[in-house]
Order: sequence, then C-alpha cells, then structure tokens
Amino acid sequence: MIDKNHCLRLDEQDPLAPLRQQFSLPEGVIYLDGNSLGARPVAAAERARQVIEQEWGEGLIRSWNTAGWRDLSQRLGDRLAPLIGAGAGEVVITDTTSINLFKVLSAALQVQAGRAPQRRVIVSESSNFPTDLYIVEGLTQLLQQGYSLRLVDSPEQLPAAIDQDTAVVLLTHVNYKTGYMHDMQATTRLIHEAGALSIWDLAHSAGAVPVDLGRSGADYAIGCTYKYLNGGPGSQAFAWVAPALCDLVTQPLSGWFGHARQFDMATRYEPSSGIARYLCGTQPITSLAMVECGLEVFERTDMQSLRRKSLALTDLFIELVEQRCVGHELKLVTPREHAKRGSHVSFEHPEGYAVIQALIARGVIGDYREPRIMRFGFTPLYTRFSEVWDAVQILGEVLDQKTWAQAQFQVRHSVT
Amino acid sequence: MIDKNHCLRLDEQDPLAPLRQQFSLPEGVIYLDGNSLGARPVAAAERARQVIEQEWGEGLIRSWNTAGWRDLSQRLGDRLAPLIGAGAGEVVITDTTSINLFKVLSAALQVQAGRAPQRRVIVSESSNFPTDLYIVEGLTQLLQQGYSLRLVDSPEQLPAAIDQDTAVVLLTHVNYKTGYMHDMQATTRLIHEAGALSIWDLAHSAGAVPVDLGRSGADYAIGCTYKYLNGGPGSQAFAWVAPALCDLVTQPLSGWFGHARQFDMATRYEPSSGIARYLCGTQPITSLAMVECGLEVFERTDMQSLRRKSLALTDLFIELVEQRCVGHELKLVTPREHAKRGSHVSFEHPEGYAVIQALIARGVIGDYREPRIMRFGFTPLYTRFSEVWDAVQILGEVLDQKTWAQAQFQVRHSVT
Repeated sequence: MIDKNHCLRLDEQDPLAPLRQQFSLPEGVIYLDGNSLGARPVAAAERARQVIEQEWGEGLIRSWNTAGWRDLSQRLGDRLAPLIGAGAGEVVITDTTSINLFKVLSAALQVQAGRAPQRRVIVSESSNFPTDLYIVEGLTQLLQQGYSLRLVDSPEQLPAAIDQDTAVVLLTHVNYKTGYMHDMQATTRLIHEAGALSIWDLAHSAGAVPVDLGRSGADYAIGCTYKYLNGGPGSQAFAWVAPALCDLVTQPLSGWFGHARQFDMATRYEPSSGIARYLCGTQPITSLAMVECGLEVFERTDMQSLRRKSLALTDLFIELVEQRCVGHELKLVTPREHAKRGSHVSFEHPEGYAVIQALIARGVIGDYREPRIMRFGFTPLYTRFSEVWDAVQILGEVLDQKTWAQAQFQVRHSVT
Repeated sequence: MIDKNHCLRLDEQDPLAPLRQQFSLPEGVIYLDGNSLGARPVAAAERARQVIEQEWGEGLIRSWNTAGWRDLSQRLGDRLAPLIGAGAGEVVITDTTSINLFKVLSAALQVQAGRAPQRRVIVSESSNFPTDLYIVEGLTQLLQQGYSLRLVDSPEQLPAAIDQDTAVVLLTHVNYKTGYMHDMQATTRLIHEAGALSIWDLAHSAGAVPVDLGRSGADYAIGCTYKYLNGGPGSQAFAWVAPALCDLVTQPLSGWFGHARQFDMATRYEPSSGIARYLCGTQPITSLAMVECGLEVFERTDMQSLRRKSLALTDLFIELVEQRCVGHELKLVTPREHAKRGSHVSFEHPEGYAVIQALIARGVIGDYREPRIMRFGFTPLYTRFSEVWDAVQILGEVLDQKTWAQAQFQVRHSVT
C-alpha cells in the first residue's frame, strides 16, 4: 500500500520540484487541468505590464520594430522548436490550431494533387478532437473536388483504413479524451508506405511528451501553446512543415505577413520561402508575447526529465485511484503501457460530470469530456506527488459520500 | 493666416478635449499614427493585470465560464455594433482581418454560386490594402473554379467594371493610402443593381467615421480593432454579415467555436445560427480582453461628434501645411471634399520616407507607405488642434532645413 509519506518523499527527491516556483498557483487548489489551460508563469505579469505600458503605451507604432513585434511569431517558433524536434526557422506561432490545420491540410492536398491526384480520402479517428474534423469538413466542402473523410474508431483500425485512395492521414498524437499516444515514427512510416502524407496535431503533446518531428519523418504538424506550454488563455497555436515540403505549394490563407516582401505593398501575392509563408494577418501581440514566458521555463529542464516525472505522476495516480476507490464504477480509459500514454489520465464514471463538479467544489480541478469521461492532467513542471495523493483522497470521499449528487452545477463545460 | 493662438482656442472650445484623459500618451510625442496603432487606453493596464493575475492566475480553467471568456467575441461585438450601424448579435470580434475576409468572401461566393453561378469575377481596387487582394488570390486559386480578380485603378472606374459577370465587389471604405472614402450607400446600391454582393473592409473606418451598415444595405463587412478603436497591438478583427445572408451558407473555417453545440463534441459540424458561425478556434484572450477598454471610451461620445472634430483636424492640417510649407514638393493625395475623406491625410513627397524618419526623430509620429506617401492620422479622441499646429511647424522646419537628408534610418517600415 502506498501512503502519503511515500508521496512526500517523492516530492523531496524530485529534481524538478524547484520549477514550481516559476508558476503562480492559487492557494487551496490542486490543479489537474494544465492539459486544458496551463498555469500562469510568474514572469507573465511583468511581461504583460511591459507590453501594455512600455511597448504599446510608450513605443506605440515604433514597437513593431523596436520591440521586435514583427518577427515575434518566428522568434517564438524557434524557441519552441527544440521541444518538438524541429529545427530553427521551421516553426511559427500564429493564429489558432483550427486555422493552422486548414493551412497545412490545404497544402498537403495540393502536394498530393500534384503527385497522386486520384487520392481523395482523408483518414482520421472518430475520437479525434472535433474541431480537427470540422476543419476537414469545411475545407473539403469548399473544394468540391470529391474529397471525403474516412474515420476509424480505434488506432488498431488505422492500417486497414490507409490505402491507395488515401491522400492525408490526420492524427492527434495524444488523444484529448483517453490520453492514448500514437507511436509517431511507426505510424508515419505506415502512412508513407501507403503513399499518404501525415498531419500530426500536437495539442496534448507539445511540452507534455518528447516529440521528434524530424526523426519521425512527419510531414506537417500543428499544436497549441496554452496547454502544457503555459502560454496563457487561448494563446496562439503553432505550425510546422517538413522543410522538403514547405516551399512546394502556397497555403490559401495568404495574408500579408506571409508575403516575401510584405512592405512592398504589391498587388500580387508572392509567398516567403520557408515557414513564414504560413503566417497570414497581424497577430494579437499581447497574447503572443506571453507565450515566451511559458517557453522560458522549459529551457531550465529537458523533455526526457519531464517525461520521467510525467510517467511517475500518472502511474501514481492510477495506482492510488485503484487502491483508494475500489468498488466504485470507475473505468480506466488511458493505456497502462507507458509508450501509449500521454500526460493525462481519464476515468469513465456514469456520473462523471457530477463527480468533476463535486471535485472542483473541493478544490481539485480536473475536467469533463463527453461521454462520462473525467480527465486529470499532470504537468511535471508544477504538479507535486503529494497533490496526487490528496486529489485521490478527495475523489475517494466524493465517491464514498456521493457528494456529487448534491453538487451545485454552476457550469456545464470548460474550454480545452 | 492661422496662428497658434487660434489652434489653442480650438482646443479650449473642443467638447471632446476631456476624452484625452482616457489615454496614456508618451511625453514629447505628437502621435499622428492612431490610424495604424491606436493609443493605449489608461484602463488597459488594470484590465491586463486583472486578466493575467486574477482570471488566468487564480481562476485558471474556470475563467472560461466565470470570467466570461467563452462568449467574449460576441459580447465585444455587441459593444462595437453601434459604431458601425450593426445590430446586437450581428458582430463578432475574432481572428484577423485577413482571415475574416477569407470567411466572408467564401460565403459570398457560395451565395452567388446558388443564385447566379455564371458570375465568377471579384472586383476590387488596385490601391486596396494588399492583404485583401492576397486573400482573394489565395481563395480563388484554392477553388479552381474559374474565379478571377478584376482591379480598377480609381473609384471612377468602378461603375464600368461591375457587370453581369461580377459576383462580389470588395472595397475598403477608406483607402489606407489616400484617405479617400467611398459613399457606402450609393456604391452598395450600384453593386446590387448589377446583381453583385458587397464586402466592405472597415479597417480605416470603424471608430473614425460614421458607418451605417444596416442603412447602407451592405452584405458583408470586416475590419480592425487596433487602429481607431484602440484595442491594442494586433488586437482581433471583426466580422459582420447582413442578417438576411448570415444563415444561408457555412463559411469554410468551421472550427468548434462556430458549432451550434460546441461541447457535444460531435464528429459532424453543424453551424450556429447567426454570426457565431463566423467564429472558428479558441481566441487569444488577453489581447481580446483589451479591446473592451478601447470600446468603453466610445460610449462617452458619439460618432457624429467625433466626425465633426475629425474633419476640423484634417481641414486644419491641410490648411496649415499649405500655409507653412509653400514651395516644397508636397502633393495632397487626400480628397478636400469632406464626403470623400476619412480621418487621415496623406501627402506625396519625393523623399517621403526620409521626411517621415526625420519627423519621428523630432517626436512627430506619422508613417510612410509606398510609393512616396507620408500619412498622418487624426484621432479625435485624443489629438489636439495645437498638436496639429506644432506638427506642421516641425514638418516645415524639416523641409526647409532638409534635415531629412541626414536622418538616421533605423527602421524601414512599420506595420499598419
């Protein structure tokens, strides 16, 4: 049996424990939702003050040059790149994940239209994050060129679904509901062997698990900075394109920030070379600047160390739930196998929504996803082992006492 | 002859003069670039602190509900609506102007494909802001359905260019270079009589001149909040669609924020009714929240009062330049006629770029646009008549002494 002292000892021995000081977390809260909105880096307050009061207020329009706003998307992309196995000049941080998916999917279909125009199927998973599927739907309906979306219900069905009709396979590396993690290298190989191109959504991977886009042979990737990267609410998303593919085609959201000579004010579009052609319009700078504060923290550690702690945290949570909550209708939906697990753990419960509300009322913040899924995110930068202990004790009490049946339901949903 | 005392008297008599206290402007600067990046409202500092430290730091994921982040795009849209003659529930503030143009242009072409599929021409102006033209190019190349862009070189050529082949006419209401303002009502009537649909870019209009989208009969409008609306650097753009058109088609950037039941997590997209279907992905909240501080200031006045002062400021500037800068190679490119003028004034000068740099070095901030155009924006919320006097005296000195020939050129361009 694991006891609380064991968890406290794990905290004492944790080499990453000091990193928690880089974050401001509220008193009385155990925050297990950093997979949805990351905690605030301490530095973000001062950085915001600087952007608002100095750069905007005093620098005014001059700050596009003097404060480096003009190439902020690229500079931040370069800082993010090492976390996902990308090179310098290969990543931009801009727009939203949905919009970046529209860009890279359009590009991938153009590339395939030149190589193998008979390929008109986009393969994905029915459990993929819905907005990714909606974007496929939006683009394919717009194109009216006979593209269709083929959805599989489990990762095991992927090999049979990827065939000579497949243009693109769009997968989220770590599933937002179950926490299932694909083997990026093996799956990309499978995709390429079938003649298709791969798009990886790294929303629940970047900053959570080691990712090596370069070595995996991936073609396109998009992802989010407001989850494990702690960039702030709704902070801009990122886009990466394999260098060999990047300059082959122009993506259709061809705004002036992607132009080769933006300030020539030419009437015709000419794309920048490299990843800058995936930029479009003027970015909300205050939000974008906050992303830097989240990325800075990662430069104090490395993804291998974070992964070790992440697995230790998720292992501990599963063990403790199974030790403390015996007899309740909890069903683990996250893989036990390390190689198939991201950094969050999900349990199904028939009253999952109510249980999560009761937990939040007790200061344990996880979240709920249809249907019946209670999600708990573990962010090795700031989650303590002893918090995992405390959270599970409270979960046990909520289930034992059925306090969830009386919980006040102020809110139905949170935004991931 | 106008003298400085006259200008000081105009300031004393200006009923809008107290509004300047709502803004934080640096000492020693005459800011004539609010048409590019609006000044910082005083309230923005405290609002940023609240979003970063309280809503993000303390509220964490709960703030999507408790701090109203979820429907912030719509609530801010409702506050902006009166400034552009739109109704409640008709405007969203989201994404960038370029991306919102992609959405409304896609929608307009879909509507026309249903009504008059032979119409395959998009009419615009060669002097339109380049990113608008780049987006037309991006979308039409993506569609591969025979659409083309027809550009006219002056507003007078518009009537002849709009014909039975025209699907959509895309115009920027106030030209970013010349300050020329279209008659929105008359031009929209012309467009409709030819069977086409209108898209109005209000980047240099919203908060600068009275706009009445409803009465003008416009079909679609987009625009910017970081210029005259003082929303902060790169703050999100807006989109408006005439209610009669809004639910006819689905725009292709169909992300989850535009879904009718976002949190059902369905695999199929079903658009919201109304303008919410023009939302796509999760918005950068810190930047979006700042927009409110700019809009609040407008609720202390009205667009008619602002227009009176704007015209008085631009009239004064033109008169003073013509009085003080006689004999220099300045050419007014902004219409003298009030009905055709926005809220900025542009002069051509063979060394326009160098002159602007020399002015900035003297604390007079205007900006430069290719070719040879010096642009000066007048924002009636905070520009003083006596500042117009001082700016013109400094311009006169720079031109007399040719100090521009020695000016240090630190920066080539600023971002509009």
